[in-house]
Amino acid sequence: MKYDIERDDLLHAVKNDSIESLYLLSDQLREFLIHKVSKTGGHLASNLGIVELTVALHRVYNSPADKIVFDVGHQAYVHKILTGRAAEFDTLRQYKGLSGFPKSRESAHDSYETGHSSTSLSAALGMATARDLKGEDYDVVAVIGDGAMTGGLVYEALNNLGASKTDMTIILNDNEMSISHNIGGLTTHLTKLRSSDNYMKAKKQIKSALGNVPVVGKQLTEGIAVTKDKIKHSVIGNDGVLFEDLGVKYLGPVDGYNIQELCEEMEAAKRLGGPVLIHVITKKGKGYEWSEKYPRKFHGIAPFDKESGKILSSSSDKSYSACFGDALTEIAGSNKSVVAIAAAMGTATGLGPFYENYPDRYFDVGIAEEHAVVFAAGLAKSGVTPVVAIYSSFLQRAFDQIIEDVCLQNLHVVFAINRAGLVGADGETHHGQFDISYLSMIPNLTILAPADGQQLAQMLEYAVNKLDGPVAIRYPRGSAAGSHNTLPDFTGDNINLSEGSDVTFLAVGAMLDETLKASEILREMNYSVGVTNVGVIKPSCDYVPDSRLVVTVEDNALRGGFGQHYAATAGAGNSVLTIGIPDSYIEHGTVSQLRVECGIDADSIVKGVVEALERKA
Amino acid sequence: MKYDIERDDLLHAVKNDSIESLYLLSDQLREFLIHKVSKTGGHLASNLGIVELTVALHRVYNSPADKIVFDVGHQAYVHKILTGRAAEFDTLRQYKGLSGFPKSRESAHDSYETGHSSTSLSAALGMATARDLKGEDYDVVAVIGDGAMTGGLVYEALNNLGASKTDMTIILNDNEMSISHNIGGLTTHLTKLRSSDNYMKAKKQIKSALGNVPVVGKQLTEGIAVTKDKIKHSVIGNDGVLFEDLGVKYLGPVDGYNIQELCEEMEAAKRLGGPVLIHVITKKGKGYEWSEKYPRKFHGIAPFDKESGKILSSSSDKSYSACFGDALTEIAGSNKSVVAIAAAMGTATGLGPFYENYPDRYFDVGIAEEHAVVFAAGLAKSGVTPVVAIYSSFLQRAFDQIIEDVCLQNLHVVFAINRAGLVGADGETHHGQFDISYLSMIPNLTILAPADGQQLAQMLEYAVNKLDGPVAIRYPRGSAAGSHNTLPDFTGDNINLSEGSDVTFLAVGAMLDETLKASEILREMNYSVGVTNVGVIKPSCDYVPDSRLVVTVEDNALRGGFGQHYAATAGAGNSVLTIGIPDSYIEHGTVSQLRVECGIDADSIVKGVVEALERKA
Repeated sequence: MKYDIERDDLLHAVKNDSIESLYLLSDQLREFLIHKVSKTGGHLASNLGIVELTVALHRVYNSPADKIVFDVGHQAYVHKILTGRAAEFDTLRQYKGLSGFPKSRESAHDSYETGHSSTSLSAALGMATARDLKGEDYDVVAVIGDGAMTGGLVYEALNNLGASKTDMTIILNDNEMSISHNIGGLTTHLTKLRSSDNYMKAKKQIKSALGNVPVVGKQLTEGIAVTKDKIKHSVIGNDGVLFEDLGVKYLGPVDGYNIQELCEEMEAAKRLGGPVLIHVITKKGKGYEWSEKYPRKFHGIAPFDKESGKILSSSSDKSYSACFGDALTEIAGSNKSVVAIAAAMGTATGLGPFYENYPDRYFDVGIAEEHAVVFAAGLAKSGVTPVVAIYSSFLQRAFDQIIEDVCLQNLHVVFAINRAGLVGADGETHHGQFDISYLSMIPNLTILAPADGQQLAQMLEYAVNKLDGPVAIRYPRGSAAGSHNTLPDFTGDNINLSEGSDVTFLAVGAMLDETLKASEILREMNYSVGVTNVGVIKPSCDYVPDSRLVVTVEDNALRGGFGQHYAATAGAGNSVLTIGIPDSYIEHGTVSQLRVECGIDADSIVKGVVEALERKA
Repeated sequence: MKYDIERDDLLHAVKNDSIESLYLLSDQLREFLIHKVSKTGGHLASNLGIVELTVALHRVYNSPADKIVFDVGHQAYVHKILTGRAAEFDTLRQYKGLSGFPKSRESAHDSYETGHSSTSLSAALGMATARDLKGEDYDVVAVIGDGAMTGGLVYEALNNLGASKTDMTIILNDNEMSISHNIGGLTTHLTKLRSSDNYMKAKKQIKSALGNVPVVGKQLTEGIAVTKDKIKHSVIGNDGVLFEDLGVKYLGPVDGYNIQELCEEMEAAKRLGGPVLIHVITKKGKGYEWSEKYPRKFHGIAPFDKESGKILSSSSDKSYSACFGDALTEIAGSNKSVVAIAAAMGTATGLGPFYENYPDRYFDVGIAEEHAVVFAAGLAKSGVTPVVAIYSSFLQRAFDQIIEDVCLQNLHVVFAINRAGLVGADGETHHGQFDISYLSMIPNLTILAPADGQQLAQMLEYAVNKLDGPVAIRYPRGSAAGSHNTLPDFTGDNINLSEGSDVTFLAVGAMLDETLKASEILREMNYSVGVTNVGVIKPSCDYVPDSRLVVTVEDNALRGGFGQHYAATAGAGNSVLTIGIPDSYIEHGTVSQLRVECGIDADSIVKGVVEALERKA
């Protein structure tokens, strides 16, 4: 049997076809995924790992009446295909195309939107509670990876879930790693459960014990099923299972590639009632040679060649994160008090070389940004200099700890904030559009923003070796070359590159590239244009240029950003045009497309400036 | 034996005096605490609960060489007394006086500053790791209550701690409640451990088994002690203890009022090495009739009469939180979709009456703000209208979830933000000085701020019944009467109270009282003064009055606050003076004292306005 992935009613198929057929369907889904993602790029390995699991979910649960919440959400591709979006996969993560994450605007089957880790249990508990309050009747299922289980939010939810009696199922998708290898007491615990095999043994015993009972009619069958559950549960026992300690029933471990067993477990969870966790064992990248071999590389990947697994065209420019990693490794060579902290994103933030050179001074705390920051505060309080590398949008999770632990105690912690500004294809939940705003309000914090890789290295050295107290350095995703790399050395001040009587740009960090392009265009239009590179966001810029118009340019929200602060303080009384990201969530696309949408590309800047000058004239 | 609490070297005493004497000391410390706090007010019940525990800590550990980290920190009074600060207790929580929380500037014994819950394990792990990296040798101890254990950050720390082999001790101070009664799977688990009594039994067995071994010299004694630990550990077993599941050794439960046993357990933890948790059973309010009877009332209390336990003088004005609670209870009577969510602060946020009337629609999730917000998002996604009541400074912990879960999905969640602005005696960690800034940058969010209790009720009704999408209502601690209560009804707009050609005030929310006072003074000085009550912080105020000067007044940080946004947008081109909290942490004192310090009291406002007008003239 051959399915037409883009045209068949796959939701009908998974519910009605034989289990045998569903294995064929799974193979085809896997092929489809590899083919499509090889062209668009995207999160491949995690999706390949849960093809059968997703098929089983849609066989047992009636989405959208039943609610399936995918934690993080980048593993919902198979779910999207099964719920009628296969034909749109050529547009995956493209501007105006299919999102790489669950979006309710795309489909009612995306019952809850995710993007940041570890939210699914809390959200699902909210949905289950709403159902109970309204006297409705549907199932709520959260699908969560073992990596996401290291986030504290999960335990806050488990603590509440364990005390409630509400019907809710958690599918723990245990692929023995999150984005990179998973570390911590929880991992050890899961490994113990995984290898204990209690459950598998118990099952066999029950099967043989019940083998002789005659089965007549549905009622008796169900009676036996319930009995089986009860026996099963008592055979396995609750001892030593963390989830049971918190009041959540534990079923598993289950083979994530056995559709029959997966469906049976989900049905068992329904019958058991109350909060139940099913521990499913999967393999990241399953079923494709290259992603099985390099699951980390294929976690989120650019377009690649299906045969060789090689990425098709990658920029030869060195990225900001690579520049950061190399610079920090060099600094750590002479400054022995430096340590690096990552939150499950060591490689992505460029810390690979640091880890290789200084494994004892490298700490990956898992998806646990709050802990990363307080742990850093503890280190700094005792005379070590921690550099905490976290993406801009994920660092939002440690907002309170930056304020109360690091900055209130005025500790020397350096935040290396990757993926500040627009990030591109990951879209709404991943843009680093708020960091200047949420950091600028914090007392004692110095905030720097490099305009290229060389400046990043200089700023890092300055922050680690010359400054005291807390420092944040924010820089974008992607190439650190830009259109410049000709900046004078950073010595702690903003850099005045040129002066102009009509317009002076205050270009924050990496927005210098668009600003320089805009200034060239304006000069060709015979305007007198000055450009200052704002590398120091805080302490505040107090430069008041002698120009008709001052224009601030940043890839951060206008609200609370550099520009509005400048306009209300040093720039007050002057004509200030603030250019930045508008007050809305920005969808996915290339960074260039999104800069145009936000009005922060060179052409939009020129247009804005000319209009402002004309209004003044 | 009688100690002179204010003059004796108590640290020397606890290390050298007999255990017998330390019980006498504990009694005196308790008396001292009750006497002093009855005059100043403060956190009494939690401190009374751990007098003996604190004595034992300082007997066993050599602070400040050894580091003791108090989670939350309001239970560090006994620690402050023992480390030489008894004589300053008359200034407790007073302006320029002793802080109610650990502060390194007060004493080297305050090894880490706390204020917000659940940070101690992460901080202590950082300190222990720094010690290991530097090859130093000291002990690190975290003291944490069972309430704080519901915060997810604790689990992030336990997960990392469990995987590390570092020496660190956690004292779990289990008083069977945090600020109010503790709820959740964890509580059930602790209750199980508490009542299991395995340990007590095991101890007796070991004692009798080892009773006949002759003890000669220190070496042998220590050998036996280690053996005892090993036996003890194997007798108790690890099964079913959540902490052991995560890789942290568990000792306990131990009676928190047996100094001898407490010291033995701490010594045992040292010998065991690695991460160890000691489960100590205490009673909140211990040893004082009234606080034992009403531990919640005596958690944080105003000055009271020692004999009767009655609060000396309490304002007859209704507080904002009481107004909120009553209004929400009324709204919930007609709108059945409304539920209330608290994070361990149900009573303090005014939700008592709601709970009494609608227990099934009331959810206290524990100290778990992130979960509270995502749980609310799940509820809202399924058609229920949650009102989340959290203090301004604690809501900082859910910053990411407000952005990614509530506002990105544009869900109808109402945030009732208590203790916005300056809070008074709790000081630096508790002021709600950032909320306008951290909320204003979030797309889709409506932000309201009432000027009195009646307006709060109207705004709440408007937010719940008339608006859709996310709404935040922020209001201060204390009396909701102010100097007004004569405002016209709130119908969704800012209220223009008067106009003036010299100055127009834009007074945000409850800052209307100081502003009205200032405007009266200015009128007496013959200035023409207008006042607008800004109840709607977002969407942005676009009112441009016809005055020489516009003055924004808010009890929020200037950085990212209402004023700077206004000055950079609608007010741009006009003369705008922004009055608000400067870019620093504000210590403790009365709200009036702190308003003066921040320059946001009536007199400072007048002074600032006159200067600005003179500069213009």
